[in-house]
Amino acid sequence: MIKAGVIGATGYAGIELVRLLLAHPQIEKITVSSVSFEGQNITDIYPNLRGFFGTNYVSGKNCKGSGILVDADTAVTESDIVFTALPHGLAEKYANRCINEHKKLIDLSADFRFDQDETTFKKWYKKDWEYPEVHKESVYGLPELNRRKIKDARVIGNPGCYVTSATLALLPVLKNDLINQDPIIIDSKSGTTGAGRKPSMTNNASECSESCSAYNIGAHRHQPEIEHNLTSASGRNYGVIFTPHLLPMSRGIISDIYAPLKSDIQDRLETSNTEELINVFHNIYTDFFKNEPFVRILPIGETPKTKNVRGTNFCDISVHLVHNNTMLQLISVLDNTVKGASGQAIQNMNIMYGFNETDGLGLVPAAF
Amino acid sequence: MIKAGVIGATGYAGIELVRLLLAHPQIEKITVSSVSFEGQNITDIYPNLRGFFGTNYVSGKNCKGSGILVDADTAVTESDIVFTALPHGLAEKYANRCINEHKKLIDLSADFRFDQDETTFKKWYKKDWEYPEVHKESVYGLPELNRRKIKDARVIGNPGCYVTSATLALLPVLKNDLINQDPIIIDSKSGTTGAGRKPSMTNNASECSESCSAYNIGAHRHQPEIEHNLTSASGRNYGVIFTPHLLPMSRGIISDIYAPLKSDIQDRLETSNTEELINVFHNIYTDFFKNEPFVRILPIGETPKTKNVRGTNFCDISVHLVHNNTMLQLISVLDNTVKGASGQAIQNMNIMYGFNETDGLGLVPAAF
Amino acid sequence: MIKAGVIGATGYAGIELVRLLLAHPQIEKITVSSVSFEGQNITDIYPNLRGFFGTNYVSGKNCKGSGILVDADTAVTESDIVFTALPHGLAEKYANRCINEHKKLIDLSADFRFDQDETTFKKWYKKDWEYPEVHKESVYGLPELNRRKIKDARVIGNPGCYVTSATLALLPVLKNDLINQDPIIIDSKSGTTGAGRKPSMTNNASECSESCSAYNIGAHRHQPEIEHNLTSASGRNYGVIFTPHLLPMSRGIISDIYAPLKSDIQDRLETSNTEELINVFHNIYTDFFKNEPFVRILPIGETPKTKNVRGTNFCDISVHLVHNNTMLQLISVLDNTVKGASGQAIQNMNIMYGFNETDGLGLVPAAF
Amino acid sequence: MIKAGVIGATGYAGIELVRLLLAHPQIEKITVSSVSFEGQNITDIYPNLRGFFGTNYVSGKNCKGSGILVDADTAVTESDIVFTALPHGLAEKYANRCINEHKKLIDLSADFRFDQDETTFKKWYKKDWEYPEVHKESVYGLPELNRRKIKDARVIGNPGCYVTSATLALLPVLKNDLINQDPIIIDSKSGTTGAGRKPSMTNNASECSESCSAYNIGAHRHQPEIEHNLTSASGRNYGVIFTPHLLPMSRGIISDIYAPLKSDIQDRLETSNTEELINVFHNIYTDFFKNEPFVRILPIGETPKTKNVRGTNFCDISVHLVHNNTMLQLISVLDNTVKGASGQAIQNMNIMYGFNETDGLGLVPAAF
Repeated sequence: MIKAGVIGATGYAGIELVRLLLAHPQIEKITVSSVSFEGQNITDIYPNLRGFFGTNYVSGKNCKGSGILVDADTAVTESDIVFTALPHGLAEKYANRCINEHKKLIDLSADFRFDQDETTFKKWYKKDWEYPEVHKESVYGLPELNRRKIKDARVIGNPGCYVTSATLALLPVLKNDLINQDPIIIDSKSGTTGAGRKPSMTNNASECSESCSAYNIGAHRHQPEIEHNLTSASGRNYGVIFTPHLLPMSRGIISDIYAPLKSDIQDRLETSNTEELINVFHNIYTDFFKNEPFVRILPIGETPKTKNVRGTNFCDISVHLVHNNTMLQLISVLDNTVKGASGQAIQNMNIMYGFNETDGLGLVPAAF
Repeated sequence: MIKAGVIGATGYAGIELVRLLLAHPQIEKITVSSVSFEGQNITDIYPNLRGFFGTNYVSGKNCKGSGILVDADTAVTESDIVFTALPHGLAEKYANRCINEHKKLIDLSADFRFDQDETTFKKWYKKDWEYPEVHKESVYGLPELNRRKIKDARVIGNPGCYVTSATLALLPVLKNDLINQDPIIIDSKSGTTGAGRKPSMTNNASECSESCSAYNIGAHRHQPEIEHNLTSASGRNYGVIFTPHLLPMSRGIISDIYAPLKSDIQDRLETSNTEELINVFHNIYTDFFKNEPFVRILPIGETPKTKNVRGTNFCDISVHLVHNNTMLQLISVLDNTVKGASGQAIQNMNIMYGFNETDGLGLVPAAF
Repeated sequence: MIKAGVIGATGYAGIELVRLLLAHPQIEKITVSSVSFEGQNITDIYPNLRGFFGTNYVSGKNCKGSGILVDADTAVTESDIVFTALPHGLAEKYANRCINEHKKLIDLSADFRFDQDETTFKKWYKKDWEYPEVHKESVYGLPELNRRKIKDARVIGNPGCYVTSATLALLPVLKNDLINQDPIIIDSKSGTTGAGRKPSMTNNASECSESCSAYNIGAHRHQPEIEHNLTSASGRNYGVIFTPHLLPMSRGIISDIYAPLKSDIQDRLETSNTEELINVFHNIYTDFFKNEPFVRILPIGETPKTKNVRGTNFCDISVHLVHNNTMLQLISVLDNTVKGASGQAIQNMNIMYGFNETDGLGLVPAAF
Repeated sequence: MIKAGVIGATGYAGIELVRLLLAHPQIEKITVSSVSFEGQNITDIYPNLRGFFGTNYVSGKNCKGSGILVDADTAVTESDIVFTALPHGLAEKYANRCINEHKKLIDLSADFRFDQDETTFKKWYKKDWEYPEVHKESVYGLPELNRRKIKDARVIGNPGCYVTSATLALLPVLKNDLINQDPIIIDSKSGTTGAGRKPSMTNNASECSESCSAYNIGAHRHQPEIEHNLTSASGRNYGVIFTPHLLPMSRGIISDIYAPLKSDIQDRLETSNTEELINVFHNIYTDFFKNEPFVRILPIGETPKTKNVRGTNFCDISVHLVHNNTMLQLISVLDNTVKGASGQAIQNMNIMYGFNETDGLGLVPAAF
């Protein structure tokens, strides 16, 4: 049993973390922190959690904590593991303190998503690193890519939501060097929680409902993170065209990925028969993820649906050959607030502490 | 052909007015005003209107205007009729100027909704009247109640959205003195546009989607306005219990109204037969509204749907007898931004200028 | 550890039961049955459950079962407890068999919702009872009303969704005889899952989205069930006006209940002070439900939101005095598919077997 | 003034046609036909249209017709122009009759979408042509491509919804031979009305809400129609990868199109400067559509939103250069039921009869 702190607990990533921590069997205490609402009880801001903190705790679970929002430093003091869900650029100092005090930290911003590549971070996030030494030991927290490193890490950079959907779908073909390096087209669609809690015209209900739009063409910060991952996984450089869209729903991401196959692929796979080819690719995928608890490869011919993973830590992926077997199409769905953020953070924590990797994440997807 | 000005053109009521004015056959020019966006083109804020102003006007309609947002005084100067769609308490001075300059004004705030009753306005809106004389000649702009007065009015107080749905449904029984005065229960549900354009947690898409909630129990400002109307229509005082709700959709109001029938009703209507009774009530309704272009009384046994009036100026009403014929239940639907706001304002303008009352409002409701 | 069977597993109530059973710590095997899809795997119809049955079970939970849909009799044979989620009138024979074979049955249809009152059942459901003796020992499964009887029951009639929201809100004032018997107005609004899985125009997405409508005025089958409950709880007869509505969302019910207070209420409560009165009523509610794990009484002045209970077994209730303290207004929200159906069935099972009442129901409501 | 008949009036394309015809200034009579509902009044099935047919016509418009649904042959007899909105394969005989009787016909199915190419039609629609001679004079009804031919046509094949969004976006670069022939990736997303009125699990509200999914990978019938159009427009063959998706909303399509630029493009356009290049492309687009009333090219840097064209006949297109100016990305939005179906049919009718092309289509897009 450990104690967890959530800094930035009232943002969407933060509050989803709290939801998952409250049901986690290994968490004995949750300390919540918020600059905006310090001193208030978190259940006043999020009445959905009423009854889950303090003495009236209804569910019978064993999690302590009053629900009163404290300052960030207190949250660190009170905790074994700290989750930072803050605007980009603010996690370093807490990470530094955690390292010094032999605590662990998982950051849900972009601060630790680029390993040692400060240049790319600065280019896209317009900030310098203040504690470069912290980055030397931070690990990028995508378990399907980095599980072994995560096990021993003290600071984790939790991946971006779109990034997770795209990277997971591409890992098997990267490892097997099956696709051309240029260009991979990623057409992604996300629910409105991706825009965060802060009210704006972008997430105004009257503007979002009954509408779909693209945004940040060629300029979204998840593009360099995807490219960084593809290189991490393969040692090669891949060029990505990434287009995000806003969907009229709250949770869920669906990414369509179009990757050109290498021209010698039929020779290498020793068949030009369509049915055999798709079987080979499908086997590559089921084999690659066979021990992964949260990645589900759909049967050949099926396509995923964001609803089927809503509220859970699953990523469902389908594999298709199109354009006369010259192009691989992958469709990947996940819940941007769970596997795309807070659920993945819990998964990382489980790995770091040697818990069952599915602890607190055994959520069964609902049909509707 | 007249010239129209819209002050507060970038709010939801304002922009819906602009949509309707652009298709109006009697409007030769629209001048738009906004404090927040002065100097910008309205199509930069509302790209849905691109092509409808200035030289690239695509639809072939005859409406002039550049779309550049000007200050409020310029909008008055340029116009024959001025629409004010501002926060409560700001319309009086423009109304005063319009009267002095022999222009007309229709206000979409609550400033002119209480006739001479400054006390009730002050109690609920916490503001004094600065130009009491303007209120002496303002008319409450519910055509089905006040058509004759509207015809000669120079200043119109356009009704509230919930208020319109409730008042229209009750007018026939008020005129015929068929219901008890106390209490009439009005349970109303509205889309998110009712919360306005200003981003807030209340209209954040991620919070609104897949949710319904009540708000302002016993404290919504539309309650005194409904009570004021019931008295205006009947000369009697009625007590109202009004509960508004927020629906996960953008447009539309549905009001369920439960009104206890007078105990002697079966004697007065000379029947205790259920079928005959409902026919009598249904006839009262169809007869009352038989010349009204925008009120549709549904056949006996049917219930209205907000979708059937979406985007149009209709109010659909159904009439039911329940609880062993002791209670009248009315269900009333309208689009809060059209018959509940901007469409009704256009209807008032049409009456004031002797245009066809349906000019610019001949919108056919879509099935989906 | 017990074995559970679900007959009618592919309907909405059935599949939600399966979701909850899969996460239940006391269930060692789930057998699923469906007439329409017999022989297929349930994950082919509901891909959201892929990985939760059979050997690939990803979550690490201990639940057995292949997921193959069998006939109903096999499901009974394989199980200790049987859940029937069938059209009305089909559960009796399985209940009879379960009694004979010393198994337990929880029925989610209306077949066992009227205790011994066959007349009312026949009037509203147009069916005779074939096994009257089964009804003699069936218990109405509302734990907050009948917990003791449920403990020893072998056949449970699980309450209707609207009925649960209304009955829970009224129980405290019924027990204390605080309201008039006539009429209690219940204005309820439900998500589309209430219309079931079978495709129809009523639940066609294009018709439902962006719309709200009332239906079955004065004729919904949940009205006699509510009236039956009010009598069960109080020994008195209450007259109910019940109006259901369809909301543009999938899950959730919100019920507004308007109940006239007895005229001597201020004498009996020994105060006419508004603040004191509301405190007295609020205390009655918090006290009545103080040991209930799934009913949350909101603080005075707050109103509930369906989103705050979505996907969970909670019922949130707010208490208001309106109309000069002569009328009690209650607002009650729950998830129609959980506390309104399958979650309540699990709660009943937990009581029947002496499990922790919250086992398998410790779901933390999400903020969005 | 002409008389119009709609065969298949109660499907979604049919009823949207009726909505538009009711507001059309040149239509003096509408005869509606339906196999399923023959003899009923269309307003019983679509109460949104109550008051628009027969003597109680509220809007003051001049359109005759009783609203009674007749058989198809009667609809032809009563009309100058016939719209067929039937399942694929049923329009030929009505087209043949119309030609013989000097009437005109616009078909909204796929029957006349492939010009003389019966082979492709048979391959994808599994039906033979029964009246090959009719196809010899049918014209594909995309005004921006075929306006001159449409003017003199007697039979029109109205384009598919996805097809219109993709073809319009590609026309300018096809005409100028700026992109590679292989492959063009089209990632499209559509609202639920695209799945039609017939209830099914695909369009069940509880399954659609809060979800997005892809379907028919590499197998959607709009792919060959797009390829046919690209050849019609350019004389060259282009290979297309087309992926449709279902969005949780009722109306609207957004298509993302990724087209590789020819490698000599910078030589041909005489610049390698990014800003100059995007200006050149943007000018090509604004110039190409400069006289088109329903295509709006967005300013450089903006992206379109389906809401901005909802309910209207507009197609909004944005133009982007991505991947170091080697790839053209086009984003195209339209309302699948208007410019993607019934509005385009009205536009075709206007052209065929020499009406103003915008008659009956001057709908101003709403902001919400």
